[in-house]
Amino acid sequence: MESSKIGLIGLAVMGQNLARNIASQNFKVSVYNRTTETMTSFIEAHGSDNLVGQADLKEFVESLESPRKIIVMVKAGRPVDLVISSLLPLLDKGDTIIDCGNSHFPDTIRREKELSEQSIHFIGCGVSGGEEGALKGPSLMPGGNKKVWSELEPIFTAIAAKDFSDKPCVTYLGNDGAGHYVKMVHNGIEYAVMQMMAEAYDVLSKSFGLTAPQIADIFEKYNEGKLQSFLFEIAVPILRQKDDLAEGYLLDKILDKAGQKGTGRWTAIEGMERGVDISTIVQAVNARIVSSRKDFRTELATKYDNPSVGKQLPTEALEEIIKELESALYAGMLLSYAQGFDLLRAAAEEMKWDLNYAEIARIWEGGCIIRAQILNTLHAAFEKSNNAPLWTIEDIVADLQESWGSLRTVTILGAQSGAPMPSLSAALSSFEGMSSARTSANFIQGLRDSFGAHTYKRTDREGTFHTEWGN
Amino acid sequence: MESSKIGLIGLAVMGQNLARNIASQNFKVSVYNRTTETMTSFIEAHGSDNLVGQADLKEFVESLESPRKIIVMVKAGRPVDLVISSLLPLLDKGDTIIDCGNSHFPDTIRREKELSEQSIHFIGCGVSGGEEGALKGPSLMPGGNKKVWSELEPIFTAIAAKDFSDKPCVTYLGNDGAGHYVKMVHNGIEYAVMQMMAEAYDVLSKSFGLTAPQIADIFEKYNEGKLQSFLFEIAVPILRQKDDLAEGYLLDKILDKAGQKGTGRWTAIEGMERGVDISTIVQAVNARIVSSRKDFRTELATKYDNPSVGKQLPTEALEEIIKELESALYAGMLLSYAQGFDLLRAAAEEMKWDLNYAEIARIWEGGCIIRAQILNTLHAAFEKSNNAPLWTIEDIVADLQESWGSLRTVTILGAQSGAPMPSLSAALSSFEGMSSARTSANFIQGLRDSFGAHTYKRTDREGTFHTEWGN
Repeated sequence: MESSKIGLIGLAVMGQNLARNIASQNFKVSVYNRTTETMTSFIEAHGSDNLVGQADLKEFVESLESPRKIIVMVKAGRPVDLVISSLLPLLDKGDTIIDCGNSHFPDTIRREKELSEQSIHFIGCGVSGGEEGALKGPSLMPGGNKKVWSELEPIFTAIAAKDFSDKPCVTYLGNDGAGHYVKMVHNGIEYAVMQMMAEAYDVLSKSFGLTAPQIADIFEKYNEGKLQSFLFEIAVPILRQKDDLAEGYLLDKILDKAGQKGTGRWTAIEGMERGVDISTIVQAVNARIVSSRKDFRTELATKYDNPSVGKQLPTEALEEIIKELESALYAGMLLSYAQGFDLLRAAAEEMKWDLNYAEIARIWEGGCIIRAQILNTLHAAFEKSNNAPLWTIEDIVADLQESWGSLRTVTILGAQSGAPMPSLSAALSSFEGMSSARTSANFIQGLRDSFGAHTYKRTDREGTFHTEWGN
Repeated sequence: MESSKIGLIGLAVMGQNLARNIASQNFKVSVYNRTTETMTSFIEAHGSDNLVGQADLKEFVESLESPRKIIVMVKAGRPVDLVISSLLPLLDKGDTIIDCGNSHFPDTIRREKELSEQSIHFIGCGVSGGEEGALKGPSLMPGGNKKVWSELEPIFTAIAAKDFSDKPCVTYLGNDGAGHYVKMVHNGIEYAVMQMMAEAYDVLSKSFGLTAPQIADIFEKYNEGKLQSFLFEIAVPILRQKDDLAEGYLLDKILDKAGQKGTGRWTAIEGMERGVDISTIVQAVNARIVSSRKDFRTELATKYDNPSVGKQLPTEALEEIIKELESALYAGMLLSYAQGFDLLRAAAEEMKWDLNYAEIARIWEGGCIIRAQILNTLHAAFEKSNNAPLWTIEDIVADLQESWGSLRTVTILGAQSGAPMPSLSAALSSFEGMSSARTSANFIQGLRDSFGAHTYKRTDREGTFHTEWGN
């Protein structure tokens, strides 16, 4: 029997779909799963000459052409280490393990180091796109040894989504953890973008009393303009979905407790560790945290009398607000990207990754959850500016300048009407701070010097100063 | 020669002042410093029968009564470990090392464990109050073995500041890292409180064109009301200080780059790690991060044209705004405490610390940087409610309900006038989320189920659901 080009371990839905994608591109793939029945029924449904199952790990390894390439697609954390340990005795020097799960980048860095000591290659590859992306073309974010990657490239290029110019949404990102780091920041931005959309939904629903399908109509229009994106695209049918268990629309019955799997939190912590303001992302994580305290919130709601509840805004204002909201969302999203790319830049510097921001924006144009028109704008901006910080690039400056006022208007609207806007208001305050030559931090420095003799610097001369305040 | 009751290592200004404080309370203290001259000149200036210096570490240790008690007051991190290593060969079983520096709590937990294996006791004790507090009475936050602590208690009780009822600002907090954890959260709250004050300063200065001494007059009035606090007290002379190197007021010449030593960041990361929304603190850290990018900000300021710059608000509105601002600051600060105590509660549960929140508020009433009238309010509220979550306690509910509208008004004012309010606006959005029985997280859950089959729950029935959206 002909050897397989590549193997895949882990047949949850993402692994299944990735294997089917590979096979459909005419690369023969062997699959293995700890629970054999999962493999058997998967092969029954989707097996072919190009897609074969193995019940025994040793036979699975032996079914692969040498040097072997094995994708691991299991739950992040300990399961990845367990799979690696069970594989190690069966591998030869020069074989490659590719972790396509949502691993935390420090784990990837550690695994790459441990495996290279045994002459086994390790590639950490972020995969975004959910079930459908895995099957029809995900965005792929690989990191690790560049030479090793080049051997995998034909397969990964074939299975990837396509960008706005029909090129594959995959590019080599950098050493060791670079791929999983970029994927982590992708997910952080995803948190911010989804939260801003939820804030828009909230104000339209709470302050103007719009129904879910009415908001669907608005979001559908947004999806024809500069907010065009996968997330707006899927939001429309979600908002229109009728409940099949009760009267009305399904969204109104969904429990308002947002789950999270950790990548947003990892990103937020990275921002703090590296001293980068990614407040739009952090506040999106905080909003999920607040949402998760449903029982506590329900208790507090009986204690506090929100002066805005039931006080709906006049519908005459609505048309104008719909426009402002579109523009504010655009500004807020641009700012989430500016913050996210700031974090990538800080990490790249410290980790010595030679990240190409234009390429990162490009591979996010297709396949992944945040795929959107805006990424084409960012891709072009980075390319034109030779990867300058987003905030400084001419076209982005023009867009932010134009939409700045709307971000203010919407933040004010939220505060007036009791629709909390943690991410949009953080975008505004971050932007207004960052674009000010002068902030109020002089006041903080005065306090710190007064109580702790922390000293301060001056704007008009060199040196370090301390004052005996009040004397 | 009579043995000393206690020893102290590390004669930077905090160590010096703590040693003088101990001696002044009639406990004989031996001091040691790695650089002997520092010790010699300190003893020349402040030596007495109760305050003696030792040039040799062995002699220092031998000068202490047994079992020995040795305070270490050196820079957090490696220096603490180095001092401990150098002490270990000289100590006997049953001796106690007390780390009074700003150590990160995981280090304290590790050190306590390592030392207990050698039968050396270890107490991690947070100390707040800056130079003056160390000398005249700090707030002390000890954690570690309770029995060991009881032997130290007489000395620490004597040197501590006094609360509003003239009781010492010290209480045993819990095992291993509890003391340094509480100190860390204290510092996080300090970040939030200072940031909110800076936001008030900013809006008065930018939007109403008030001068520093005009703002001093306003803050002086605030300091007579419910915002009465050490930080407002010291802000007044800071705002009034004339520049002795140039025309005008000193504050206007201080560089707007706020420094930080890490405790705010540690707190922010803890919030994320434990899934607690402490956004007022996180956003204060972010504001410092933004301020630190002075060159980048200055560059951006030339690219963006802030529509609010130079557009001052009418002074007729000022009187009303001064009142609103006072009330908004009060609400914002209450909410920083609510968030900070939420974090303490989550940590205590996981770390099995039996934290007494009324006692924590009480020992912050005096000595420390955040000492304020508000802490007396919190202390009473916790006592009355048997340490219920702050948000739920009747008196706090009444105060928040009353000041809620002002927090809105001020957030709106900031957004209108281009004075960024990262912490105050985070306080508002967090509070509005937390006091809502219904948030917009249902929308996020809809998206997550659509692209990732993450499933959702319903408000009207039990179970876990997944929908094929749009079908």
